[in-house]
Amino acid sequence: MKVTALAGGTGSAKLLRGLKSLPIDLTVVANVGDNVWMYGAYVCPDVDVACYTLAGISDVERGWGVRGDTFYSLERLARLGLETWFKLGDMDLAVCLARTEMLRRGGSLTSATERIRRALGAPSPVLPATDHAVETRVETKKGDLHLQEFWVRDRGRPAVLRVRYRGAASSSPTEQVARAVSDADRVVVCPANPVTSVGPMLAVRGFASLLSSTRARVVALSPMSGRRPFSGPAGKLMKAAGRRPDSVGVAEMYAGFLDALLISKGDAGMKRDIERLGVECAVTDTLMSNPRDEARLARELLRA
Amino acid sequence: MKVTALAGGTGSAKLLRGLKSLPIDLTVVANVGDNVWMYGAYVCPDVDVACYTLAGISDVERGWGVRGDTFYSLERLARLGLETWFKLGDMDLAVCLARTEMLRRGGSLTSATERIRRALGAPSPVLPATDHAVETRVETKKGDLHLQEFWVRDRGRPAVLRVRYRGAASSSPTEQVARAVSDADRVVVCPANPVTSVGPMLAVRGFASLLSSTRARVVALSPMSGRRPFSGPAGKLMKAAGRRPDSVGVAEMYAGFLDALLISKGDAGMKRDIERLGVECAVTDTLMSNPRDEARLARELLRA
Repeated sequence: MKVTALAGGTGSAKLLRGLKSLPIDLTVVANVGDNVWMYGAYVCPDVDVACYTLAGISDVERGWGVRGDTFYSLERLARLGLETWFKLGDMDLAVCLARTEMLRRGGSLTSATERIRRALGAPSPVLPATDHAVETRVETKKGDLHLQEFWVRDRGRPAVLRVRYRGAASSSPTEQVARAVSDADRVVVCPANPVTSVGPMLAVRGFASLLSSTRARVVALSPMSGRRPFSGPAGKLMKAAGRRPDSVGVAEMYAGFLDALLISKGDAGMKRDIERLGVECAVTDTLMSNPRDEARLARELLRA
Repeated sequence: MKVTALAGGTGSAKLLRGLKSLPIDLTVVANVGDNVWMYGAYVCPDVDVACYTLAGISDVERGWGVRGDTFYSLERLARLGLETWFKLGDMDLAVCLARTEMLRRGGSLTSATERIRRALGAPSPVLPATDHAVETRVETKKGDLHLQEFWVRDRGRPAVLRVRYRGAASSSPTEQVARAVSDADRVVVCPANPVTSVGPMLAVRGFASLLSSTRARVVALSPMSGRRPFSGPAGKLMKAAGRRPDSVGVAEMYAGFLDALLISKGDAGMKRDIERLGVECAVTDTLMSNPRDEARLARELLRA
């Protein structure tokens, strides 16, 4: 079975581990909206977490970076007086520098990612949603911030006015992404922040219509439990986007292309509201706290 | 006594250590022609070797980099399939990344260098010869190469047709450099490659006339002993530049501004040819193999 998974960061990684354990033909499409330039290096957190996860070298406990990575470069940058709120390990940094060099030599983000995921030993392709620069900007009362400034540096504290996807209007999905969505038997939307992980992909011109026109069933695992996400700032940002910060809000945002949504047992009361949007809804235990949960949820999703 | 030293790489560092040990007011003007972009980071080898030397953290044995530096990042870049012929240690890399970030935020190379040398604990200012991009290109039978490609990657092997200083015609010395040269009591030209270390400075528009018009005595220590430099590709490149590859050739290149040249005992026979160029000439033991030699030569130069 050909499965294409749309993935963001931490929450997505857990489901990717589950999918990786199944006998399927997996392709990951990764969010690029949180890419950021740091010290001259092009950092692509969601692309990299997907590569690390598939390669089996991700730091599962921490939810980001490479297991056992060191932080010599970052310590030295701090000693030189630079802000080092974005915790880039040495391996992380090497990946970003390698990518920057490949881009400088004229490679696309897609081709650089392909070289890197192979070098790291990831067995499945990881495709950036687009090769164009799309950047998630969070307009706050403290000013217009890069998502990483809002979430990592300012710990998600500033009051949010609006979220924009800079560059999205003039972007397009890559051919590889278009093929991966069209040719799939299942498209899985990972339990990721709908505003900052999936939203930037949907904002890429033509991406949403790829999803609504694919012959594949499109299924999602809700990242919300009640009014709270399992991780990250989804609730706050969904509210800022004018959505209910729960699984119904998620279903509303995905209704244009989603066939089925898996929600948590505690949210069983939302089933009817979700089905009213034309989205099938199944209820299960959506918490992933070990590899068994991850594999079980991956299987349930593919059957949903 | 205010002393301004024009410095390149390895050979210069030895004399800088000597100058540093004297009770003088030292400013270093560093070559920028061998600056190079690597993996998105702006590498400034001669600027950095000056900072490391003054800070007392340079690797004297090796002639480049930081003593005791590690190479984790480079090993990882190699594992990711990148060329790593330019040996950047982790501390080196952090310095380059910090500089790149400062430049990206709108700082000049001069201001970035000032922040870095202070953070490293270098007690004297290090001034890039110019804030403009000046790049030493070596035209060879194998193609038009960056100096680092010619010297480090290709080990100086390709036959040299010509050396150019790309960008020099539209460059200018910084105000700080102009002041450092005009206000000095002595300007010292370190024993550096006249073509690739001092040449790029002299090619900066207005730099040579700063030297010829300063009230300071301008003195140099020859980097040549017979037809050989103490280190580096000076001989080959001087020949390509149409010069005698010896201390007479050095004197010819500097004749427009040089008051006195210190040459090695073995070259005493060249004294007359050098004086014929209008340059005073003194003969001494110019080999620097320990801190005592370095300090002695620094003293002799200031008296020359």
